[in-house]
Amino acid sequence: MSQELRGRLFAELDALVLIDPHTHINALAPASRTLADILGYHYYTELAHSAGMPRERIEEPGLDPKEKVGRLFANLGPIDNTVQYSWFAEMAQKFFGWDGGPIDSTNWETLYDRATDRMAAPDWPELVLQRSGLSAVFLTNDFDDPLEGFDTNVYVPCLRTDDLVFHLHRRQVRERLERATESAVTTASGLRSAISSLFQRFASRNARACAISLPPDFEPAKVLPGRAETALEHVLSKGEAADASHRRALAHYVFWTLAEFCQEYRLPFDLMIGVNRQVYPQGVFQGQDLYDSRVSLIQYRELFNAFPQVPFPISVLASVTNQELVSYAWIFPNVYTHGHWWYSNTPTFIEHDLSARLEAVPRTKQLGYYSDMYKLEFALPKFGMYKRILAKVLAERFVIEQGWSEQRAVELGRQLLLGNVQRMFGFES
Amino acid sequence: MSQELRGRLFAELDALVLIDPHTHINALAPASRTLADILGYHYYTELAHSAGMPRERIEEPGLDPKEKVGRLFANLGPIDNTVQYSWFAEMAQKFFGWDGGPIDSTNWETLYDRATDRMAAPDWPELVLQRSGLSAVFLTNDFDDPLEGFDTNVYVPCLRTDDLVFHLHRRQVRERLERATESAVTTASGLRSAISSLFQRFASRNARACAISLPPDFEPAKVLPGRAETALEHVLSKGEAADASHRRALAHYVFWTLAEFCQEYRLPFDLMIGVNRQVYPQGVFQGQDLYDSRVSLIQYRELFNAFPQVPFPISVLASVTNQELVSYAWIFPNVYTHGHWWYSNTPTFIEHDLSARLEAVPRTKQLGYYSDMYKLEFALPKFGMYKRILAKVLAERFVIEQGWSEQRAVELGRQLLLGNVQRMFGFES
Amino acid sequence: MSQELRGRLFAELDALVLIDPHTHINALAPASRTLADILGYHYYTELAHSAGMPRERIEEPGLDPKEKVGRLFANLGPIDNTVQYSWFAEMAQKFFGWDGGPIDSTNWETLYDRATDRMAAPDWPELVLQRSGLSAVFLTNDFDDPLEGFDTNVYVPCLRTDDLVFHLHRRQVRERLERATESAVTTASGLRSAISSLFQRFASRNARACAISLPPDFEPAKVLPGRAETALEHVLSKGEAADASHRRALAHYVFWTLAEFCQEYRLPFDLMIGVNRQVYPQGVFQGQDLYDSRVSLIQYRELFNAFPQVPFPISVLASVTNQELVSYAWIFPNVYTHGHWWYSNTPTFIEHDLSARLEAVPRTKQLGYYSDMYKLEFALPKFGMYKRILAKVLAERFVIEQGWSEQRAVELGRQLLLGNVQRMFGFES
Repeated sequence: MSQELRGRLFAELDALVLIDPHTHINALAPASRTLADILGYHYYTELAHSAGMPRERIEEPGLDPKEKVGRLFANLGPIDNTVQYSWFAEMAQKFFGWDGGPIDSTNWETLYDRATDRMAAPDWPELVLQRSGLSAVFLTNDFDDPLEGFDTNVYVPCLRTDDLVFHLHRRQVRERLERATESAVTTASGLRSAISSLFQRFASRNARACAISLPPDFEPAKVLPGRAETALEHVLSKGEAADASHRRALAHYVFWTLAEFCQEYRLPFDLMIGVNRQVYPQGVFQGQDLYDSRVSLIQYRELFNAFPQVPFPISVLASVTNQELVSYAWIFPNVYTHGHWWYSNTPTFIEHDLSARLEAVPRTKQLGYYSDMYKLEFALPKFGMYKRILAKVLAERFVIEQGWSEQRAVELGRQLLLGNVQRMFGFES
Repeated sequence: MSQELRGRLFAELDALVLIDPHTHINALAPASRTLADILGYHYYTELAHSAGMPRERIEEPGLDPKEKVGRLFANLGPIDNTVQYSWFAEMAQKFFGWDGGPIDSTNWETLYDRATDRMAAPDWPELVLQRSGLSAVFLTNDFDDPLEGFDTNVYVPCLRTDDLVFHLHRRQVRERLERATESAVTTASGLRSAISSLFQRFASRNARACAISLPPDFEPAKVLPGRAETALEHVLSKGEAADASHRRALAHYVFWTLAEFCQEYRLPFDLMIGVNRQVYPQGVFQGQDLYDSRVSLIQYRELFNAFPQVPFPISVLASVTNQELVSYAWIFPNVYTHGHWWYSNTPTFIEHDLSARLEAVPRTKQLGYYSDMYKLEFALPKFGMYKRILAKVLAERFVIEQGWSEQRAVELGRQLLLGNVQRMFGFES
Repeated sequence: MSQELRGRLFAELDALVLIDPHTHINALAPASRTLADILGYHYYTELAHSAGMPRERIEEPGLDPKEKVGRLFANLGPIDNTVQYSWFAEMAQKFFGWDGGPIDSTNWETLYDRATDRMAAPDWPELVLQRSGLSAVFLTNDFDDPLEGFDTNVYVPCLRTDDLVFHLHRRQVRERLERATESAVTTASGLRSAISSLFQRFASRNARACAISLPPDFEPAKVLPGRAETALEHVLSKGEAADASHRRALAHYVFWTLAEFCQEYRLPFDLMIGVNRQVYPQGVFQGQDLYDSRVSLIQYRELFNAFPQVPFPISVLASVTNQELVSYAWIFPNVYTHGHWWYSNTPTFIEHDLSARLEAVPRTKQLGYYSDMYKLEFALPKFGMYKRILAKVLAERFVIEQGWSEQRAVELGRQLLLGNVQRMFGFES
């Protein structure tokens, strides 16, 4: 019975047209042109590399896309158990009519060529969006992104701020900021003005969020202007050799300033908490980051208290932090649960984390899912995975165990998938 | 099949008459007088507040109970997915004959008035106890509670010691202690005498436990009398401005002294580990506390080794600490698992934590559940939730997977719910 | 349906003949001689002790095996819910023909005598291996084990290195090392030579792994030879009174040297991460160790980066570390998941941890299970427990939810149980 019920709930949820509130799509090249764009996604390269494929084989300079795909196919057997592989299988089936049988060295070229053909259609991105049930996707824009040349109602800008907070000691970043804002970043107030003009420009281009990923040891704190000034002076004179304490003070100042502008511009501030960068420097592109799961939201108490008007959609990297996220979202009006991020974006963790959220966080405060994708084709299988788990949890824990009607369960699912995203990011009609 | 089996096991467990080993009931006003006493419970006010209801609307001074309930009902929609809301729905149904349909702005007054009527019955508390299958409930008494005016066989005293350990630097607390014990708290030995007389009085009034909640960074340690003396002198002269190191030494001294008296008076010492107070000071009453889940029972190794005769029923705030609790209870004879506390008292965490306990902790060392309630009406739905999960785990993991007979499974459940509570707290006939 | 499917998958997995890649078997006395060898296993003594049985009753010097078993049987009631007890029940049934009914004070002697009879057969160890579906088991050999008198193809040596890394400040350990290697351990280079000759000897006796268990606060680091020299000099002169910093430097030096020899000898280095020794010194033999679950694999980043050629099969003590293990194995080519260790070796944690691994770690990098046993009889019920859970996860998450064929699911299970063990430890034909 449970299987049929799950199927019915999934079908209802799968019929919705959604907004994807966090992706890494390039609005000027949103969809794939060959399977190399799909299999080049770090999930496949890093897993193939982890299973023994040399990085040099994957990242050989000037490698032809088809040759790259051929090499990868020869190395996917060891990862065909993973959920990431199942995403690929679903894409092959849904987008390219693959019959679901194994894809291997004997037949991958057929799939490759068929995919290249379809992707060549001028309206391929629109077809993918439509087929995936998406009306809009959020971008992740560098602060100096010109934000030109695309429809911001479909490709919604989001100001990504990692560089500003963590890399301002790099000359290149400061120069990018000065160019982008036409202002001098030589004093704390000048820095503040520059950030202000970023917000102004992004807001004028329909930006709906500010976002940042944060290492496990980050603990936001308000920094007095004098301290910020000292820190900036030091960093300007020392650059990459700046002391950790000054770099930290500057990072705190910039972060706090971003929160202030989020308040002024009424933008949600997406916090993605817990990643350590470059843990494995010899890894493939984008396959080098890991984490220390010893992180606590208590590190954010001062921030949450200081900005009651700023909504903080929060993603945590490790499932062991999910209960804190549930509890903080249950208590703090400005803390929201946001999707299932990266290393927690696999079925076992999603099911556990989602179940805990559904039973203790107000239904209005749960932003169900985002794809985090780099190419549009990934939304379909990733959202599909999430919707199947959501249907399972709703079926087992609400309909069967608590006697909810199927309609009521679907309504709850709809709110997580769509309603809350619309309300949070200002898409209500 | 599993559903029917779960139903049968639940029915058996639900027929037991239990003792609730931890509540915050006021023995002089144990039950609710209006729905405002129920919806005023912090679980509802903090969730409604988190979902957007201003604190001022909830805690307006002099607010009429019915008006308060009306305001809250207007704000429960966003939390109707939560397990806490399901407790309310079950109370409405079981105590006030509500038919199970939605309660909203169109009909809440009917429910309110009906509840007020029933609650006005002079024997309402006894009716609630009977209907809930409870023969006795533990209290949580301030150390200066007179413990008079109620039947201590039904409302069992428990000495709550947070103030003594953590707030002795407050003049008000010291004065309360001096008044309650008619002794001077000006030396370490005087403090010890005062604590001794508290235990004497509580024991003479049928107290069955000593209890305390502890922050994540607390690490009990034995303090030499000379150090305690120095700390107390410092605290007496500086009060709230006392140095952290002296406050800590005094807290350690008092805590260790409490354990010594638990041994002398053969009282279990309930430890509730992991809460940070006042993380969100702008929250509603009792809706301000959160936690840092980075805590370990290794912090208690010295204590567990020093007091082999004192039973420590232990509650942990975060599910990520549950495996340590399982392991410590599996090794230390004096460590017991105790209920599912606060932020871990929701079905997903209960099921995971309970399953882990059932398969690795001796059955005699698991105290299944307590309600933590402030008003008697909550025991029924909270114990109901737990018993349903217990029935599920027994059905799936013991009867189906291991071939246990239903009777044997029920016996195990009975021991967690009742037998162990009776033995631990001296209720055996 | 799911139950029958699970049964079919289990039957297929249970028909395999396996290699057990980590045990504590004594190759010269691998099987039990009486039930005292079985019930004397720390899982039973520590649980019985935790449930109230005095240590003196269990560990009385000169206690007759039968008397010991009698005493333990009188104290097993309180632990008959545990999975450890279920292992005993399965052994009684499978090895001694017990009918599955309760074993208690009225009938244990029958079982005891029957077991003693069967165990007296000269080929009992071989029978047990055969009945358990094992072709070989790994040992855990002290560095000075002579490795003589047994068939190393069945009882495969493994160099255990805890003493070398953590106890070299003990004169006794240094003397054992000097005797075993016939070299002087008075300089860093002498120490290195001694370790070299250990590897040489172990390799010549068919050793297939180097192994160590590590406390939660251990963080490997490369130590310069000069620093190692200073540390060793200090430790040689101070012995057990050596400063912690010098002991730590020496431990780091030895550990790093072990990794270098693992690379030279192409041996996997089993890391068992997270145990604190002697947390409960009054506990029974081998029932004194616990842990602090606040540990992170980030502590091993330098090691994993420095030795890309050394495979590290990794066991974590606490389930809360499992997600990090999954993520590190997903990224680092030399990190492998290895079994379910000790306090995580119970069904709830195995199911959660295994599910997470199966969906995100390359299938070639998961070493499914080891028994960790001290006597051969334990492999059967322990592997049985694991195979049932593996069958459940494969049934529910792959066959039912993803539409895998049963054959494909069995192949995945076979790879975890056998194929990867063969490949990792060089047993491929």
